Amino acid sequence: MHPYRTHSCADLTKDNVGDTVRLSGWVHRVRDHGGVLFIDLRDHYGMTQLICDPDSPVFAEVEKVRSEWCIRIDGEVKARDESLINSKIPTGEIEVFVRDIEVLGRAEELPLMVFGDQEYPEETRLRHRYLDLRREVMQRNMILRSDVVASIRKRMWDQNFREFQTPIITASSPEGARDFLVPSRLHPGKFYALPQAPQQFKQLIMVSGFDKYFQIAPCFRDEDPRADRSPTDFYQLDMEMSFVTQQDVFDTIQPVIAGIFEEFGGGRKVDTDWPQISYRDAALWYGTDKPDLRNPIKMQIVSDHFRGSGFAIFAKLLEQDGTEIRAIPAPGGGSRKFCDRMNSYAQSQGLPGMGYIFWREGSDGMEAAGPLAKNIGPERTEEIRQQLGLGVGDAAFFLGGKPSAFEAVAGRARTVIGDELNLTDKDRFAFAWIVDFPIYEKDAETGAIDFEHNPFSMPQGGMEALDGDPLDVLGFQYDLACNGYELVSGAIRNHRPEIMYRAFEIAGYGKEEVNKRFGGMVTAFQYGAPPHGGCAAGIDRIVMLLADEDNIREVIMFPMNQQAQDLMMDAPSDPLPEQLRELSLRVLPKED
Amino acid sequence: MHPYRTHSCADLTKDNVGDTVRLSGWVHRVRDHGGVLFIDLRDHYGMTQLICDPDSPVFAEVEKVRSEWCIRIDGEVKARDESLINSKIPTGEIEVFVRDIEVLGRAEELPLMVFGDQEYPEETRLRHRYLDLRREVMQRNMILRSDVVASIRKRMWDQNFREFQTPIITASSPEGARDFLVPSRLHPGKFYALPQAPQQFKQLIMVSGFDKYFQIAPCFRDEDPRADRSPTDFYQLDMEMSFVTQQDVFDTIQPVIAGIFEEFGGGRKVDTDWPQISYRDAALWYGTDKPDLRNPIKMQIVSDHFRGSGFAIFAKLLEQDGTEIRAIPAPGGGSRKFCDRMNSYAQSQGLPGMGYIFWREGSDGMEAAGPLAKNIGPERTEEIRQQLGLGVGDAAFFLGGKPSAFEAVAGRARTVIGDELNLTDKDRFAFAWIVDFPIYEKDAETGAIDFEHNPFSMPQGGMEALDGDPLDVLGFQYDLACNGYELVSGAIRNHRPEIMYRAFEIAGYGKEEVNKRFGGMVTAFQYGAPPHGGCAAGIDRIVMLLADEDNIREVIMFPMNQQAQDLMMDAPSDPLPEQLRELSLRVLPKED
Repeated sequence: MHPYRTHSCADLTKDNVGDTVRLSGWVHRVRDHGGVLFIDLRDHYGMTQLICDPDSPVFAEVEKVRSEWCIRIDGEVKARDESLINSKIPTGEIEVFVRDIEVLGRAEELPLMVFGDQEYPEETRLRHRYLDLRREVMQRNMILRSDVVASIRKRMWDQNFREFQTPIITASSPEGARDFLVPSRLHPGKFYALPQAPQQFKQLIMVSGFDKYFQIAPCFRDEDPRADRSPTDFYQLDMEMSFVTQQDVFDTIQPVIAGIFEEFGGGRKVDTDWPQISYRDAALWYGTDKPDLRNPIKMQIVSDHFRGSGFAIFAKLLEQDGTEIRAIPAPGGGSRKFCDRMNSYAQSQGLPGMGYIFWREGSDGMEAAGPLAKNIGPERTEEIRQQLGLGVGDAAFFLGGKPSAFEAVAGRARTVIGDELNLTDKDRFAFAWIVDFPIYEKDAETGAIDFEHNPFSMPQGGMEALDGDPLDVLGFQYDLACNGYELVSGAIRNHRPEIMYRAFEIAGYGKEEVNKRFGGMVTAFQYGAPPHGGCAAGIDRIVMLLADEDNIREVIMFPMNQQAQDLMMDAPSDPLPEQLRELSLRVLPKED
Repeated sequence: MHPYRTHSCADLTKDNVGDTVRLSGWVHRVRDHGGVLFIDLRDHYGMTQLICDPDSPVFAEVEKVRSEWCIRIDGEVKARDESLINSKIPTGEIEVFVRDIEVLGRAEELPLMVFGDQEYPEETRLRHRYLDLRREVMQRNMILRSDVVASIRKRMWDQNFREFQTPIITASSPEGARDFLVPSRLHPGKFYALPQAPQQFKQLIMVSGFDKYFQIAPCFRDEDPRADRSPTDFYQLDMEMSFVTQQDVFDTIQPVIAGIFEEFGGGRKVDTDWPQISYRDAALWYGTDKPDLRNPIKMQIVSDHFRGSGFAIFAKLLEQDGTEIRAIPAPGGGSRKFCDRMNSYAQSQGLPGMGYIFWREGSDGMEAAGPLAKNIGPERTEEIRQQLGLGVGDAAFFLGGKPSAFEAVAGRARTVIGDELNLTDKDRFAFAWIVDFPIYEKDAETGAIDFEHNPFSMPQGGMEALDGDPLDVLGFQYDLACNGYELVSGAIRNHRPEIMYRAFEIAGYGKEEVNKRFGGMVTAFQYGAPPHGGCAAGIDRIVMLLADEDNIREVIMFPMNQQAQDLMMDAPSDPLPEQLRELSLRVLPKED
């Protein structure tokens, strides 16, 4: 007999009745029913009920075991009484009478129970992650993550992509975030960097003549922690293709992502229509470049109805350049109570408030209510209602000023309205490609032109486009939004050195600076670079959405805490003096 | 029409004759045959012959292209003349008459030719890796690597393993090599480390109740570079299982490795019999713990034949404790010329030489020749011949002293003898499990007891075994050797805290020290640790063997050079002053 097990804890059924079996696993729960011990024995695969009565030769040993001890038992499989059959688990028809036991690993008093649903502070969970991970939901999340990654790989292989590993100890790759540095021992005073993304390497792989690359790639950014972001490393499905257009990239990645959501979405609806929405339209309609399209609300510009109207605040605002009035239609939101609550919400977000109109059944048929309706009068109110397609029982909220000042709040208000009015179908995954990102943005304070996003994207219109107003230049650059998250980001790359130098020049980087920062790649482009493009999809975020979790740490095996510490392994920690000596480094005393 | 291609450069056949097609790729070679241009256009998939004659509307443009320019052409597919068909390539029946051309990326003068077999210094190749990688052998090696890794994953999944990612920015995991450190910005003065292997994490995954883990894992060791080792990072197939014996691990990994060698070995024979050889026997028989079993030579102890013999050097040696005489049989090596050459070889390796005997046809039948034979006389010589099973035309070499002083040279001599005598079948992969490694070794100078290998292995015999002579304690620890390389290394782990503390105590590490170094894991073991074990296989080395390369850099996309520098991306490099400031670090001036 195998020293540890003849079966897993999920294997035994009525077919095994009468068999002598050996099982290993953890004591999930012990119950004492009048001197007879019932033990739920758990392993990775399932649970089996053990019974030990005082007749067992090892009763005294079994009496000693406690939750989470790891044990091996031998015993005889018996059928459960008809009334005791548990149809919820595969082993629910049987129980095993314990005849021998070996304690494989005893457990100290537990800082964290595996059995049951008790909540523990994150610090406790992370410090004893090995116990936390034994809990059913964590086992499920980790299995999900593993299966999602495996399925992504299969789907990419099926499309003739090959996975290539790119260096992890490498040069700084300025991508907008901070690099993690790695001091070199062989070259004292010099430092490597961990890649923020394999961006330059995947482009070099294309220049090297490979046609379709992907990688489930670890990425490293020294960022200040957030709930939906790992403070140190995270994983991307990174992919790149040569000789492609933006649409080719969409056609390649959509079936992969859609397939994953179909396969692991637990039956939630996966939209097959993925609209392409320009960055500008997304900002207007949804107040964000990662809209949640499960929410049907689409904002609209209603400036004309307020221009010169009796609502002086908006009428005055509109006299200034670059201002706009936008409406958030709220079908079904037509009550003063709801409208006031939303107005307070806007105030909580730092705005002076949101004006509103709502439509109700009056004595004379439909009537528009709310202070705004009075101020602008019935004609304009009716025009607004018609533009927004609203009716009795509906409401509309209004925000005015420079869009950049209220767009984000408008977007969040749209989300809250959708949620509160149950307009947002939670059991669904809705996708949209956000396209036509501007290449440049103007710094609000200094007025300087800088890259809005990724400096490596090809400007639409190429070199010619760069001769006009930089703020009008759009890039072949795109994101995929899903349920309000950015899942994918990518671009067709600027593979022409002359266009690249010009694009950087506009943002204030001279040729020398470009050569210094991206020398490897720019040099490579001078030796027959193919047109290429691709994207990267956040693995942790995809799994988080599929697992219906809000915190990325629920889908990572051994995450850092929010202070970027590993409490279990004690990282970061003090270096040994000889380590610093070998690296020719000194730690400066703390400044107070 | 697609802006870049309707077909790849490997697609077109006689079926396409008459079609107008669009191709993109690199100009592999241009030949001018009396005013008609022949261009081999290459992409990742293959090669297509283009023809451009002066009638083409773009002849003047086509005349300008040079090797490695990336171009897009439109043209008409025509059948080649029967006499010009190239049956070696799939597109060998056709050629494409160029009617339009677009230069997608021109190339400067090439530092390295893609076409042809010219050799370049490694520095040139690594600095312009994107050109080096376009060469056929490098494309093949990278594809091989990718396919091997994909196949390994499939094989592991098929055995119900799941891949889990473990942290890369983490705590120091002392494994015998130097850690790469990563300074923390949020915790100034503290450092993370990059994992030398996911050893502790995979054990923690087992303690967390997962049953079968694997990962194609990046590992980081700050080692002084060697040809068969990457100086910074390398990849392992890392795996671990719970509730298993050593034999279970072998039974799991053997089909994976054997399958890979069958699939990608290019028809070379893959041995199915993988003997298990104890560490001590391997040292005796092969002079190494990574024997090349394609070489049939097995060394033997022949001390008795020399004890008190007329060969004074050996006879005297044998009077000292711990000495031995070993023979290397050399079937077919029976000539003085060969024996002298081998003797010189031993001298080149720092030994005084190797005595030898060889057997030849004399006037009276077989006769033993060589000075040794004379010294020990015919009777002892004959006993040796019989023990070694040699005959006319064969030779034997002899080494004496403390085995530790000559074992390694003996092993290398065995290799040279096998090669020179063509005993070693090069077209074969021969595997052996090396088992029963000693847990401890004695430092030759200080006499101190330390771990021989990995301190986490379970001693055979458990706690009891630790009460005897430490040097007698064997571990459940194993390596897989293939053709003279160590491909896999693993162990059944010591999962019992009390045995672990005792094992460390013997090596001079107190409880406090153990808690400090391996605190996370040792603490975890106190909460119901299951018995577990596994192994890790070197991916780079497996691919190197399959690709029949001697240098690991031939199977890595973007390797460091031997000085751990990336010449293409310029790493390591000087940090920015503000980066050091953020990390509270100062670089010490160089000591001269």
